[in-house]
Amino acid sequence: VTARPEVTWVNGAPAETVSALDRGLHYGDGLFETISCRGGRARFLALHLDRLARGCARLGMALPDAATLRAEIETLARGANESVVKLIVTRGEAKARGYTPAGDEIPTRIAFRYASPAERGAPLRVRTAQMRLGENPALAGMRHLNRLEQVLARAELRGGAESELLLFSSSGKLVSGTMANVFLVRDGRLSTPRVDLCGVAGVMRQVVMREAAQAGIEVAERVIEAREIFEAGEVFFTNARIGAQPVGVLDGRALATGALTLRVQELIAKAADG
Amino acid sequence: VTARPEVTWVNGAPAETVSALDRGLHYGDGLFETISCRGGRARFLALHLDRLARGCARLGMALPDAATLRAEIETLARGANESVVKLIVTRGEAKARGYTPAGDEIPTRIAFRYASPAERGAPLRVRTAQMRLGENPALAGMRHLNRLEQVLARAELRGGAESELLLFSSSGKLVSGTMANVFLVRDGRLSTPRVDLCGVAGVMRQVVMREAAQAGIEVAERVIEAREIFEAGEVFFTNARIGAQPVGVLDGRALATGALTLRVQELIAKAADG
Repeated sequence: VTARPEVTWVNGAPAETVSALDRGLHYGDGLFETISCRGGRARFLALHLDRLARGCARLGMALPDAATLRAEIETLARGANESVVKLIVTRGEAKARGYTPAGDEIPTRIAFRYASPAERGAPLRVRTAQMRLGENPALAGMRHLNRLEQVLARAELRGGAESELLLFSSSGKLVSGTMANVFLVRDGRLSTPRVDLCGVAGVMRQVVMREAAQAGIEVAERVIEAREIFEAGEVFFTNARIGAQPVGVLDGRALATGALTLRVQELIAKAADG
Repeated sequence: VTARPEVTWVNGAPAETVSALDRGLHYGDGLFETISCRGGRARFLALHLDRLARGCARLGMALPDAATLRAEIETLARGANESVVKLIVTRGEAKARGYTPAGDEIPTRIAFRYASPAERGAPLRVRTAQMRLGENPALAGMRHLNRLEQVLARAELRGGAESELLLFSSSGKLVSGTMANVFLVRDGRLSTPRVDLCGVAGVMRQVVMREAAQAGIEVAERVIEAREIFEAGEVFFTNARIGAQPVGVLDGRALATGALTLRVQELIAKAADG
């Protein structure tokens, strides 16, 4: 695992710094994507770029030219066999002091290529987070740069045996992990929390929903109450890097990696990109 | 009004950029202060530095040396008669990919001096925001860098006659303006919303509470329901730059600048710093 990126580009050119006036720094006014690259190719790149475009529209931000973004990420991906490319797009440098965008900012794009840790895929030890996520439909679903909740949640893991948390919203609904979406399996059906009040609409979550539906597996995006966790026979987390990773221990309760989790892993592995 | 800062310092030296790996950029993992400087002096600097220190403790961040911070802000303030100094302190450059802090990051301090717009103090036109703020006690009260809610709220003002909004929480409680705290006056008493579920514990809010109490004015920090807005005879906003600014129009209803608002303005003007 290399801690620092192998390559950093700012607006398409190698650079190590961004403007101290960037609104991404001042307000978290931007979005990011974490893209898994395998065999020198960026997986599900079209889905990542689609989500980014939707986020820019919701934030009222100009979208960097899509062909340019695509070319940059593909070039970065080709430079290594296995990697993760993190792309940050901010609204750009502030034109004046204060929250209000001027409206004609030029977005900043920052791309990093990291050596990709091996995907061990070993079942995760997970526990319920104490911190609950605030609910705001205006922000929900986006992979925006306001991530203090996740930073603080992960501090709960310090010194413990667990490597992930199950996060609930302020109104007590299941949301996600700290860096992954979550699926529950019960009676051969998949469920994953809605992300219209908080949480992120993960690209791998979208892939799993699409592939499961195409394979004839029932999958519901819905409000999930805390008690339903205890009724689930299988639980797995998803994100672009880990794919679908089973939960092996949840709040001390052992969970087997079930048939449906393995089936979803197969579906992801052979899913068509885009 | 100068849109760009007159001076920018990063870690105590003139600089225009920060590391592209800074956790302030990636996650909004940091805090800021906006300090009003009058006659070459930073007002209420001790209160600003106290709040910053409390925020660092809550985020589990190292606090930059307080004497160094104080000296930097005082030096910046001395360089102009009237200015605003914005100080950002982030957790520092990321040591690895992912939300979890390594724990030994070195905080980044970024200071800007802006020419200060004249404080017109004219009564504000305000309306109730459609967007509601998410509630999270783990983040409430801090002036952290996760400010997308404020950015999006201010977009509601575009094209309208108002210059500020009244923000409510997801559970319907009054919180603040987009860049100011709010006080209501009724029957000679001041009330301001608690900031334990969302909102920022403003330095000027603290000054007003302290000075009012010392002057024998009753002041309550409490849960405020929406209907109480309509029962208030005076409403004013506070922040470090504007002091206490009366609301002249609220959702179309005219409000006079009352005696207690004027009294609070006097108290702020003669308040002892620190």
